[in-house]
Amino acid sequence: MRETVLVGVDWGTTNLRAYAFGADGSVRTKTHRPTGITRMSGPYGDLLEELCRELGAGADTPALLCGMVGSRQGWIEARYITTPCTLDGLVEGLVSAPHAPRHVLVVPGLDSQSGSAPDVMRGEETQLLGLMESIGAGERLVCMPGTHCKWVQLAGGRILDFRSYMTGEAFAALKDHTILGRQMSEGAAHDAAAFARGVAMAQEARGRGPGALLNLLFGVRTLGLFDRLGPEAAPSLMSGLMIGAEIADALGPQPPAEPVVIVGSAGLGARYRYAAEALGVPTVVADEDIATRGLWAIARAAGLASG
Amino acid sequence: MRETVLVGVDWGTTNLRAYAFGADGSVRTKTHRPTGITRMSGPYGDLLEELCRELGAGADTPALLCGMVGSRQGWIEARYITTPCTLDGLVEGLVSAPHAPRHVLVVPGLDSQSGSAPDVMRGEETQLLGLMESIGAGERLVCMPGTHCKWVQLAGGRILDFRSYMTGEAFAALKDHTILGRQMSEGAAHDAAAFARGVAMAQEARGRGPGALLNLLFGVRTLGLFDRLGPEAAPSLMSGLMIGAEIADALGPQPPAEPVVIVGSAGLGARYRYAAEALGVPTVVADEDIATRGLWAIARAAGLASG
Repeated sequence: MRETVLVGVDWGTTNLRAYAFGADGSVRTKTHRPTGITRMSGPYGDLLEELCRELGAGADTPALLCGMVGSRQGWIEARYITTPCTLDGLVEGLVSAPHAPRHVLVVPGLDSQSGSAPDVMRGEETQLLGLMESIGAGERLVCMPGTHCKWVQLAGGRILDFRSYMTGEAFAALKDHTILGRQMSEGAAHDAAAFARGVAMAQEARGRGPGALLNLLFGVRTLGLFDRLGPEAAPSLMSGLMIGAEIADALGPQPPAEPVVIVGSAGLGARYRYAAEALGVPTVVADEDIATRGLWAIARAAGLASG
Repeated sequence: MRETVLVGVDWGTTNLRAYAFGADGSVRTKTHRPTGITRMSGPYGDLLEELCRELGAGADTPALLCGMVGSRQGWIEARYITTPCTLDGLVEGLVSAPHAPRHVLVVPGLDSQSGSAPDVMRGEETQLLGLMESIGAGERLVCMPGTHCKWVQLAGGRILDFRSYMTGEAFAALKDHTILGRQMSEGAAHDAAAFARGVAMAQEARGRGPGALLNLLFGVRTLGLFDRLGPEAAPSLMSGLMIGAEIADALGPQPPAEPVVIVGSAGLGARYRYAAEALGVPTVVADEDIATRGLWAIARAAGLASG
């Protein structure tokens, strides 16, 4: 009989996904809950036991958790490990959850101290380790779209450095709370031509500084004022402008030698993929299971699942 | 007896200011109302008559209005005049208000078509004409802080070109509706050191593209996360970052030969002045009465007030 040797949980801000791993590292069964750390009403240990029961894990099966569950606001704080960082460095930073009815380890986040301000990630480091299982020591630039998109440099089996862009959250705030949104249709469908036009506007302004974005955004309003942009197309143009500007900055002056790896293929990932290719940079999409492969890689390196 | 020969009104989105001019162009008396075009409850003509009565203007005294009152949402649309533009060009664009109990002319706005999207101003063109009364044909870069800050090039008695930056409005939206605001104290006083630090961060990123702003803004959060920025100082740092980035882009690679003219000395104007000088560019502050001088210059050129 194939036994569950590890329960892995990707426990984020608003949701969680839990997996039961077999001894060969494959996912035997999985479940999810809308109870991210900001939506918890009871003890973490109780919910984890509920997940383990549902996944059919025995009382001795260890659990490995990643994501915001390890933040100051989560179950137990697992401090950030500073980049560059290897799998072993991450394993050293694992912390045990207190008062847990089974052995529970929590994955630390990563920080970068290379810029004028620090940068942080939590959860993505586990995906990156999963990704490195397939690319090995190769050099790659990885784009992880989301509310706060991460751009990560991998090389030599290490997470070298990374940067966050709050493009998704800024887009929503500007759309819903400035004059720009007033001339946009609610719930307009994605308009590929308007998105491409926004990317082109960003490309044209590539030689300008960070402040140019505040000028370019005003153009979303004025194009509408001169009837050169309809209310249905305006959100897509603005999205193309912001994502295009982000990608141009993240790529830097020298395009990467290998295709950019996009983590997440649907929706937002597809927009990033389109914009990167419009800027002349080839992309590939990461496999969907890199989070679980990362959890397994960490668990094995930590001796948590002998497999 | 000195008679009122012109009533001038700077009629904006949320407020209006009205002036009675004597034959020598001096302002004899003035008044204001919190009834910008978005707060009107009755006909424009009725409110104008009320203002004229209060200012002691006779029934034959003409009125000249500038600002959003000339927009599509105002009393009557006075179309945009495309830059470069002279005083005469602006006068040619004046339109008569309909059904007015006296002779009422409305000043057109300006548009620029030099960028990837059009740009517009309405109201500032009148201030600029007032400013040109004192600088003549000189070459100047003018900074007009506000919700949508305008940067304007003047030369040879013409308004050559301009750009808007939605820095003020974007700041408010990002502060009130993203994760950045969650670690900021409500109503914190201006922190000069934090503001300067933000300007320096923008300066450091000068060689990066427009998208860098979305990365730099995330630093406001992470500095707080690492206890390197207090909640009282965070809004000022973000303000310095955004205003600094705007100014660096507006100045371009070549600093202007003459000091930048800042329109508006209090509050926001002082921040722009500080940031520009921190970036190595000297500034001067425009006289406070340039709006009234602009109204008078336009009225005279239009033969509205023979003076």
